Amino acid sequence: MRAHVYVTLKTTVLDAQGQTIANALRRLHHPSVQDVRQGKYFLLTLDDSLAQDVARMEVERIAADVLTNPVIEEFTYRIE
Amino acid sequence: MRAHVYVTLKTTVLDAQGQTIANALRRLHHPSVQDVRQGKYFLLTLDDSLAQDVARMEVERIAADVLTNPVIEEFTYRIE
Repeated sequence: MRAHVYVTLKTTVLDAQGQTIANALRRLHHPSVQDVRQGKYFLLTLDDSLAQDVARMEVERIAADVLTNPVIEEFTYRIE
Repeated sequence: MRAHVYVTLKTTVLDAQGQTIANALRRLHHPSVQDVRQGKYFLLTLDDSLAQDVARMEVERIAADVLTNPVIEEFTYRIE
């Protein structure tokens, strides 16, 4: 079982790195890009014997406690 | 229109950062996590007037030329 966790800066937090990429893309002739936000991506491989709801709780705890800084970041996840 | 681009190290490349996270999770009493791979996540906001296939080509070019180091990384993307 695999869990994909996406961690991004909260929308209220300035994403300087994303803005730098957006500016670079405009200079590199990609004018259709209006905005870029950069984040982190984690692919977790979980024990296949876990029940779906247990896996969900486990991933939420890991994402909230370890992978995300709750002051400035938020996360979404997907289990497959 | 928004494009999500996920950049990860190729599976043949050692992901030291991911392994460090996996080891930390085991020490933090998450034994169900077997493996972790870390990557980067980019959320691109594109001009809404772009046709779907043009947007797809644009995102592929940006991901391949700017966001990914083709020697050690690979990407996937999703447009919504």
